[in-house]
Amino acid sequence: MKIVAAKGILKANDQLATENRARFEREGIYAVNLVGSPGCGKTTLLEGVFRATDGRAAMAVIEGDLAGQVDAERMEKIGVPVVQINTDGMCHLDANMIAAARDGLAIEGPTMLFIENVGNLVCTAGFDLGEHLRLIALSVPEGDDKLIKYPVIFQRSHALVITKIDMLTHSNFSVARVREHMQRLAPQAPIFEVSALHGTGMAELADWLLARRTG
Amino acid sequence: MKIVAAKGILKANDQLATENRARFEREGIYAVNLVGSPGCGKTTLLEGVFRATDGRAAMAVIEGDLAGQVDAERMEKIGVPVVQINTDGMCHLDANMIAAARDGLAIEGPTMLFIENVGNLVCTAGFDLGEHLRLIALSVPEGDDKLIKYPVIFQRSHALVITKIDMLTHSNFSVARVREHMQRLAPQAPIFEVSALHGTGMAELADWLLARRTG
Repeated sequence: MKIVAAKGILKANDQLATENRARFEREGIYAVNLVGSPGCGKTTLLEGVFRATDGRAAMAVIEGDLAGQVDAERMEKIGVPVVQINTDGMCHLDANMIAAARDGLAIEGPTMLFIENVGNLVCTAGFDLGEHLRLIALSVPEGDDKLIKYPVIFQRSHALVITKIDMLTHSNFSVARVREHMQRLAPQAPIFEVSALHGTGMAELADWLLARRTG
Repeated sequence: MKIVAAKGILKANDQLATENRARFEREGIYAVNLVGSPGCGKTTLLEGVFRATDGRAAMAVIEGDLAGQVDAERMEKIGVPVVQINTDGMCHLDANMIAAARDGLAIEGPTMLFIENVGNLVCTAGFDLGEHLRLIALSVPEGDDKLIKYPVIFQRSHALVITKIDMLTHSNFSVARVREHMQRLAPQAPIFEVSALHGTGMAELADWLLARRTG
């Protein structure tokens, strides 16, 4: 049996990611790679960002899932241009899929392109998609120990959004503990506390995203 | 660049898994592979099973995490023999890790061995560890659409445990919708609704596990 290390595959992905980024810059697209566990509220967060940006920026979304189109339908419902990628069992998106999905998006002019990755705290960490910003969502019900158990993906993110903050009262989740671990893993990364469902903290997050795009 | 399909790797894993299973049977070990998303409550579920079995069976645990030993410490605290595997970035446990971890467990006589896999709804689906039973946990806060988005792992599980059922009132999670999808994916699999924290439904689950072991 012969085993080839994944290194070669990753190198090819990095090359494609660099090409995606160059293309996005030519087209005025600011790309955000949104990662997090299954069910941490990524799609609800995007719905909240859409409401909170309130037309100040054009938005588009690429949805990544193993199967189905549940999330893409939610985006269509609120009028956001969307392409659904079905990875057919693959545990993460890669730069090649993003290039194909971009071709499928009918957008023009400056756009914030959100790429909702497959729900996965491990495999998504290793793949640059050509994004400008990697945003990680961690939901309160998941528990405050996730940064200890899955350090790499938090380390490689530019900002952390603690979602479902309205559920704090029903849990022993400690925001202070998460802040402490994030300080160690990614000291530059701002931390947002939001409830996308209730709108809490969403204005601050939306403003930061808009500033970051033009900054 | 040369790419070798993962098929060969999986074949080697299957061989090792078969060896693990044969060894477990010689030793009177009944092995349960517990899978689910990060933060779906796998460790809390094991604590609950330990309380609900109440000495009727000896228990041991193998904890799988990328890093840290948070869960193993929780098991030690309640007096369950435990070995922590740190996968060092790997997104799932494999049969080789389990063989090594078994060697590290000081157990004798009939034992229920729970293997808490890495929190991951994708990659853990493809790896037989030598278990007798694969149990999947899905928490209410994750949402009822996970069976649509991650069908394979639900399809390959022998039972589904809906965890954090006490959080139903704070969500639009539909148990009926989950039951309907599970019926399509794995019609033989029983479905348990539990709150491990409050004890709800735990006696039923514990009884079923004990019966399944001897059955």
